[in-house]
Amino acid sequence: MTGDQETAARMDWRDFDEDPLPPLLRTAVQTFVTHGYHGTSTRTLASAANMSVPGLYHHFPSKQAIIVAIMDHAMADLWRRSEAALAEAGADLEQQLQLHIECLVLFHAHRKELAFLAATELRSLEPVARARHIAARDRQERMLVEILRAGASHGVFVAPDPRQSARAMITMCTGVSQWFDAAGPLSAVEIAADYAGYAERIVGREHRP
Amino acid sequence: MTGDQETAARMDWRDFDEDPLPPLLRTAVQTFVTHGYHGTSTRTLASAANMSVPGLYHHFPSKQAIIVAIMDHAMADLWRRSEAALAEAGADLEQQLQLHIECLVLFHAHRKELAFLAATELRSLEPVARARHIAARDRQERMLVEILRAGASHGVFVAPDPRQSARAMITMCTGVSQWFDAAGPLSAVEIAADYAGYAERIVGREHRP
Repeated sequence: MTGDQETAARMDWRDFDEDPLPPLLRTAVQTFVTHGYHGTSTRTLASAANMSVPGLYHHFPSKQAIIVAIMDHAMADLWRRSEAALAEAGADLEQQLQLHIECLVLFHAHRKELAFLAATELRSLEPVARARHIAARDRQERMLVEILRAGASHGVFVAPDPRQSARAMITMCTGVSQWFDAAGPLSAVEIAADYAGYAERIVGREHRP
Repeated sequence: MTGDQETAARMDWRDFDEDPLPPLLRTAVQTFVTHGYHGTSTRTLASAANMSVPGLYHHFPSKQAIIVAIMDHAMADLWRRSEAALAEAGADLEQQLQLHIECLVLFHAHRKELAFLAATELRSLEPVARARHIAARDRQERMLVEILRAGASHGVFVAPDPRQSARAMITMCTGVSQWFDAAGPLSAVEIAADYAGYAERIVGREHRP
């Protein structure tokens, strides 16, 4: 194990109690979700955070810097959790798939607003940040593709097109952010378990009713 | 067959060659996708359609009326196609599932921009239109839930929670709008066939590698 992997294994990727975002970014997430990036002024962001506009500029040079910080945080947090889930699964490929799907569902249930911004405001990122976001999204997708590819080559999964089935699974999981209701009948943990079952059915060799 | 069902059966739900939107709404879709509803002015919409602002107001009383017309069109079009697919499938529940999924995938591949607006600008609809949109979305979801429920009660499908598995399938299919590339390696028809296979695996009694 490398040092990074040890850190990943120690991280509790199922824990969403604490939101590591600083208050200014947390209120900015709400404001962007409500009005959209283009419909939000720096003044609105400052006022939502109970700050003056110069006070806000003291922390972030622009509205763009704020959305970039939010998007970078979202992708980095999901990646760290996915790495920790992979480390927990060890070498068992079915377990890797189960925990990866569980991780995606929990993140998108607990971080609905971040998921909404990542899906809707990619268009608002300037070229460098946009390219970085797409690279992070591709890296995230590749982790699942590799699990499916390894599973297919070891005869554990039936995945003739791992990239295609990975995308189907990923959008199914990210879609949880569109409808999850913390007050609803199913908890995030229950949904995650059901979805891990769906993923297993999509590529599993055996049928498990 | 009722008159409505006959009309549905006659509609070619796989044909996306013609875009029935009037030019003003078609350019408005592009503008809203690029800048967001809140970031778009009536002046921008008029200019994108090569019209004057009074000319635009001659057709639509407000920016809100334009987004509402777009959203209503999207939901009505998807619904008509889904009804036609259901009529084509007849009484065979597996066939109903296959064609329903095929219909969802084709729509979301060929109508990416409409799907993006439906997912992102629900927040921008005023209360009456918003309630109507949600009702249309619920009716659309219910069609698949009913197929799965009927399949489960006839022993064709394994769907202990039809609403939950319907949602997983729907978001998987709507997700196609996020990444489909008409110039990509897979056509919409091929993706639709793969996705129908995934759906069948999620609820199918038999495993079909």
